Amino acid sequence: MTAFLDRCRAIAGAADSLQYVLDSAAAMAPYLRDWRGRFTGNALAVLRPGSVDEVARLVRLCAEERVPIVPQGGNTGLVLGSVPDASGTAVVLSLARLDRIRSLDAVNRTVTVDAGVILQHVQEAAAAADCLFPLSLAAEGSCTIGGNLSTNAGGTGVLRYGNTRELCLGLEVVTPQGEIWSGLRGLRKDNTGYDLRDLYIGAEGTLGIITGAVMKLYPAPKASVTALAALPSPEHALRLLSLAQDRAGASLTGFELMSAFCLALVAKHFPALPRPFAGPSPQYALLEISSNESEAHAVALLEGAMGAAFEAGIALDAVVATSVAQSRGLWHLREHIPLAQAADGKNIKHDISLPVSSIARFIAHTEPLLQQAFPGCQLVCFGHLGDGNLHFNVAPPQGIDNEAFLVNQAAVNRVVHDAVAAFGGSISAEHGIGALKRDELARYKSPVELNLMRAIKAALDPLNIMNPGKIL
Amino acid sequence: MTAFLDRCRAIAGAADSLQYVLDSAAAMAPYLRDWRGRFTGNALAVLRPGSVDEVARLVRLCAEERVPIVPQGGNTGLVLGSVPDASGTAVVLSLARLDRIRSLDAVNRTVTVDAGVILQHVQEAAAAADCLFPLSLAAEGSCTIGGNLSTNAGGTGVLRYGNTRELCLGLEVVTPQGEIWSGLRGLRKDNTGYDLRDLYIGAEGTLGIITGAVMKLYPAPKASVTALAALPSPEHALRLLSLAQDRAGASLTGFELMSAFCLALVAKHFPALPRPFAGPSPQYALLEISSNESEAHAVALLEGAMGAAFEAGIALDAVVATSVAQSRGLWHLREHIPLAQAADGKNIKHDISLPVSSIARFIAHTEPLLQQAFPGCQLVCFGHLGDGNLHFNVAPPQGIDNEAFLVNQAAVNRVVHDAVAAFGGSISAEHGIGALKRDELARYKSPVELNLMRAIKAALDPLNIMNPGKIL
Repeated sequence: MTAFLDRCRAIAGAADSLQYVLDSAAAMAPYLRDWRGRFTGNALAVLRPGSVDEVARLVRLCAEERVPIVPQGGNTGLVLGSVPDASGTAVVLSLARLDRIRSLDAVNRTVTVDAGVILQHVQEAAAAADCLFPLSLAAEGSCTIGGNLSTNAGGTGVLRYGNTRELCLGLEVVTPQGEIWSGLRGLRKDNTGYDLRDLYIGAEGTLGIITGAVMKLYPAPKASVTALAALPSPEHALRLLSLAQDRAGASLTGFELMSAFCLALVAKHFPALPRPFAGPSPQYALLEISSNESEAHAVALLEGAMGAAFEAGIALDAVVATSVAQSRGLWHLREHIPLAQAADGKNIKHDISLPVSSIARFIAHTEPLLQQAFPGCQLVCFGHLGDGNLHFNVAPPQGIDNEAFLVNQAAVNRVVHDAVAAFGGSISAEHGIGALKRDELARYKSPVELNLMRAIKAALDPLNIMNPGKIL
Repeated sequence: MTAFLDRCRAIAGAADSLQYVLDSAAAMAPYLRDWRGRFTGNALAVLRPGSVDEVARLVRLCAEERVPIVPQGGNTGLVLGSVPDASGTAVVLSLARLDRIRSLDAVNRTVTVDAGVILQHVQEAAAAADCLFPLSLAAEGSCTIGGNLSTNAGGTGVLRYGNTRELCLGLEVVTPQGEIWSGLRGLRKDNTGYDLRDLYIGAEGTLGIITGAVMKLYPAPKASVTALAALPSPEHALRLLSLAQDRAGASLTGFELMSAFCLALVAKHFPALPRPFAGPSPQYALLEISSNESEAHAVALLEGAMGAAFEAGIALDAVVATSVAQSRGLWHLREHIPLAQAADGKNIKHDISLPVSSIARFIAHTEPLLQQAFPGCQLVCFGHLGDGNLHFNVAPPQGIDNEAFLVNQAAVNRVVHDAVAAFGGSISAEHGIGALKRDELARYKSPVELNLMRAIKAALDPLNIMNPGKIL
């Protein structure tokens, strides 16, 4: 293997082999450990090429030597997709040094970026050109656009702007054979053959390595304002969503659901945050309205929608932010739910999606099943209701140790995922499959679909060197 | 072959073999002739199954007998994708009898349809539920949603709502092996493995047969209003587009470019239509603004944008429709351009797209090249500027017979498509490749991309029975 590493160094390490081809345990450690700290794998080496051409040459070398490749962006994934297994036979190929914003075209409303650019830097480049790059998620200061594409990341802007998939117009990909597919097209319409772009998006690095992308930009809204509504039930949240969509159309840019238990957790662990209501209500919805016209227009739209919701008997109470600053405060409540959960101890997490119209019925169906199987368990249910995406997390009963409760993980998953399947939902809405949910995927996908995926994998990566053991 | 047809009749023709398995020349004729009447193919038979199960059984039979299958929806395609070749060895498999709207979910904002449902019927079903299905194109009274999906149809709503691809959440597909993939999911987020859906969309029936789909619905806007602006140049149209997008965001639902020559053709052949301006200007842009709030809001937004365009020296003149009825009148001008072209005689058509920012430079670059090669030729240039999509058609010089000029088709294509390639554009923006543009595709795509497509085709359709000779 020394010979192999020497050849890697000749390609990527010429300038500085200590920095660009890592093989010491200490230097490799951050690349081998998963974001949530649940797993640490092993690797032959971590390769840090500095150009697309170096990526291609390294892949050709790995193909020749049959060395598996684990592509890695910011390594912030939640499903063990970007870390190697424990065997130590693979290399991690980090895209971190491909971090240039190649170009920005404000009239075409596109930005062309290297895969290793950090999401926040894409957002900042867009803002500097008076545009919006709408992808936004908790890890945006660390995750890379290549990782966002490989996992088809979701986040808080999906209701209006779609997932990462919908934000991408073109890709550059190094194939498992080490060839470069230059598909960096900045076109809104292009019907010239098979949609390779969308095949690589969400493939979690198992079909090739995304090295560059053309992403869509949008006119930056003049203002975004929010309201927090207290509601009797998830069913009422659905009625509020429909009402707000009918009145605001694309101006409704966010619609988040939070249960009373979620806000209680936030109040417990972050007592300095505002408490908008005197007493608790069963559910809360956070609405965001954006306007390309003016802040006054956004506020008027929001007030109109909330007024109509009161008239229709949907909302129990509501706080309408009258400024952008107040709006940020309401978003903080939502954003602190995962932090409050973490402070409270580990729980059993599910990243699920459902037809929006089924969500209230899904919760009503599944919560009693969980209570029956795990009496006293506590549901931390929140998420992007407008996208049908729930973070449906199960915490232990009061007085039970969080770590001890994790022994129920598989049994809890079975209850939740069986219910998801029964309601036509997805067991991974926005995080992907990786190694973590591979067995769950095999359980819930039809043999026809699994065989189609396997046929594509075998056709594009016949040596099975691209991120093996992930997804399939 | 009698035995083969008997077996087809046992599957699809049991109820009425004369209607459902056609093999007489007269009965097959409409299925063998392309929409523009340029080509008529031959077939063993036309199969008209009545259920997804019958489709699957027919495909299994064809696979067994190695009989090529040409899937067909409304047969309104423009690239010879839905008609068989002249050999007479294939069957046409029409989806026309799969014409049920299976269900509509107004809260999830989805409609689940058979592939053979006519586009206009999908629009009508949506409207009956106070929703909008935004796909709209000239053939909507005849084309089917399965054909729209297989060609990833564009049309006039793309600027706001995207192509057919962006409107689809789930598919049901019969594979070339005659298996049924049930991917009819109505989910906004689903990251569970490879994106099979987008692989079938736009594949023109070469990878399988789409039999059903879940399509997105939108809140119906309260009103859509239009303005027609007279402009000095395409460059000014781009400036107007940017200005209107900045001010209106997603409320800008249409932006069409038309040259003076286009409107002159309309005036010549449809003298009864309104002539909004006293004298001619070099270019015109049709803007459409839609509002979920009110007609007054839409009109105010439009008037504001046009006022700003005057202040910025972008527009020479403008007509702002102050009602929905007036707006329809302005759209009629745009919609009559293809009809006026047809009345004027055949021309050499190109369905191209470019980065929006390149369009003015593309026209300035390409028109002189055409004039140099074909002195006096007349450019019929119009299209969906907001999507970067131009219908860039070349008519003969005055006094030259239209049919005679068609001899230059290949040479004209070369000038236009070479220029498209040089500007990073697409030789087929919204019509697809079919048999018509197969050689052009092979010329302009990279070997890497062609090989990736061939690998996918071979993996999913190893017998090459699905619409052979189309795309690849």
